[in-house]
Amino acid sequence: MKFKITATSDKARTGEIRTAHGIIKTPAFMPVGTAATVKAMLPESVRATGADIILGNTYHLMLRPGAERIAKLGGLHKFMNWPGPILTDSGGFQVMSLAKLRKIDKDGVTFQSHIDGGEHRLTPEKSMEIQHLLGSDITMVFDECTPYPATHEEAEDSMRLSLEWAERSKQAFIPSPGHALFGIVQGGIYPDLREESARALVDIGFDGYAIGGLAVGEGQEEMFNVLDYTIPLLPENKPRYLMGVGKPDDIIGAVARGIDMFDCVIPTRSGRNGQAYVRGGTINIRNAEYADDLHPLDPECLCPACLDYARAYLHHLVKSNEILGSMLMTWHNLQYYQDLMKGLREG
Amino acid sequence: MKFKITATSDKARTGEIRTAHGIIKTPAFMPVGTAATVKAMLPESVRATGADIILGNTYHLMLRPGAERIAKLGGLHKFMNWPGPILTDSGGFQVMSLAKLRKIDKDGVTFQSHIDGGEHRLTPEKSMEIQHLLGSDITMVFDECTPYPATHEEAEDSMRLSLEWAERSKQAFIPSPGHALFGIVQGGIYPDLREESARALVDIGFDGYAIGGLAVGEGQEEMFNVLDYTIPLLPENKPRYLMGVGKPDDIIGAVARGIDMFDCVIPTRSGRNGQAYVRGGTINIRNAEYADDLHPLDPECLCPACLDYARAYLHHLVKSNEILGSMLMTWHNLQYYQDLMKGLREG
Repeated sequence: MKFKITATSDKARTGEIRTAHGIIKTPAFMPVGTAATVKAMLPESVRATGADIILGNTYHLMLRPGAERIAKLGGLHKFMNWPGPILTDSGGFQVMSLAKLRKIDKDGVTFQSHIDGGEHRLTPEKSMEIQHLLGSDITMVFDECTPYPATHEEAEDSMRLSLEWAERSKQAFIPSPGHALFGIVQGGIYPDLREESARALVDIGFDGYAIGGLAVGEGQEEMFNVLDYTIPLLPENKPRYLMGVGKPDDIIGAVARGIDMFDCVIPTRSGRNGQAYVRGGTINIRNAEYADDLHPLDPECLCPACLDYARAYLHHLVKSNEILGSMLMTWHNLQYYQDLMKGLREG
Repeated sequence: MKFKITATSDKARTGEIRTAHGIIKTPAFMPVGTAATVKAMLPESVRATGADIILGNTYHLMLRPGAERIAKLGGLHKFMNWPGPILTDSGGFQVMSLAKLRKIDKDGVTFQSHIDGGEHRLTPEKSMEIQHLLGSDITMVFDECTPYPATHEEAEDSMRLSLEWAERSKQAFIPSPGHALFGIVQGGIYPDLREESARALVDIGFDGYAIGGLAVGEGQEEMFNVLDYTIPLLPENKPRYLMGVGKPDDIIGAVARGIDMFDCVIPTRSGRNGQAYVRGGTINIRNAEYADDLHPLDPECLCPACLDYARAYLHHLVKSNEILGSMLMTWHNLQYYQDLMKGLREG
């Protein structure tokens, strides 16, 4: 994997990441394709919004349909008909947020599937193996997701465990051309812990660095604080990825601070729930005021939802729980997010 | 509206119906777009399968979003971005199958909405008004749906009421170029009643004739019986529409008997439930045998579901209740049905 910075403006920068499956223009927003599908979207439609890369979830895919199965079927790209780059998370976050009866030890995590209750185990080595079977272009180290709020001692213990797992992830990762491994800086909202985490990860050496454990309830101001003191600790010539973020103004503020990559379920999930991101704010299309509204969702947007339909129609679809409502609202939100990123890259 | 027969073969025929919104090649299958959307499909995708015309449901649309609202928004074609012909049913069938607390009198039906319990009333005049507001290319007369099974007396009373309503529908219908009104032959499984209904409707005079009250549990043999003695009573130079039918072999048998038009929820509904119609039969994609199946759903089909994905992926999507599963399975089934109709027209 190669990263080239093409322009800078104060702390912000634009660039290109070259992977085995194509180029990612940065700053980049990665639509979330949890279960080998960006919900309610054909992959060619995701691509049409301008997305260069999508994210897949190791936790979901290992449980269903299974990483070995996907490998036998030709890998995740072929399975889901997405020929572009794919980043997979490590499974650590979802184990903590979705699985039942978790048991963490030094070696890894044992947990019950949220689907069928079956017992599974993830370790750094297992997470690397799964992401390799999936054929991920960008693999994330296996880490422990620090709860929020956490005391300094809790955040320290968690960060140190994640560091050990990062080291083991690096050792277990099978390098190949155009495939990358990213480290994840942890440490909660404690500057000394973030610094220890960042320095240790840089010592181990990764192809890119993510900042994890944010957007978990700390608020935007605190999140920007963490970015302000953490980003300067990361190498300039490696991509920086802010995990699970965020709303448009979170992204704008993070790009200004030097972040290159984002992922978030907000555009897809809120689209399915009837919330649209539009120039000037958000619209809850369920509101009665839109029942007779002949305007497009966002007059400046060129997605099919905005070009071909009135708000009144989208209101009707979402109120009627029609699948087409989820399809069009998701498409629009992903278009909005990609237009935002394009504006940031060109602006 | 103009109907031209382009070829005949024994009782079967091919033709063209010219409407205000374009040409319908017959025999035609009309995908069902109940609530102003063919579920899980963009309208351009419906068109891409080869569909010339879709069906809208008066009952659903009058309740939500309301016919007056759709008229204010520019009519159903514009509202749902379907520029081609639309046939609307009269609401009679859904009032009987979906609404609560129905009260039928000579003049019409009072019923409670299945959505919010609100009281509504449909009469022949009201049904004509609603279908006019929607901008329907082919309007159906308001009829009473005869229950099945029904005694001769019940079927007779019901058919006679439907005849009165057909007469009133004809009087209330506002003619305009390229817009048609179809009568509906009722009479259950009783030849004398079907004959009385057909002759009386032909006397009133309609642009086309539907055969109603079939595919309600009588079985294919009985349905074909009814067609065998009813179709000869209808004018040769008018389109014949078998309502709510059916499975592929129902359609093949009905075309051989001289039917020109069909509608049915089977391809869309069964698609969402994981059942695919393929060359050689049906596939329930949920079955475990497809979990590792690298073949396309139907190797001869050119729809995106078959061109871009393996059965294993569709199995995964449907088992995971992913919206994309509904989208792809629906697309395939509609493509299968349109390919079937094309084969019948060309065969």
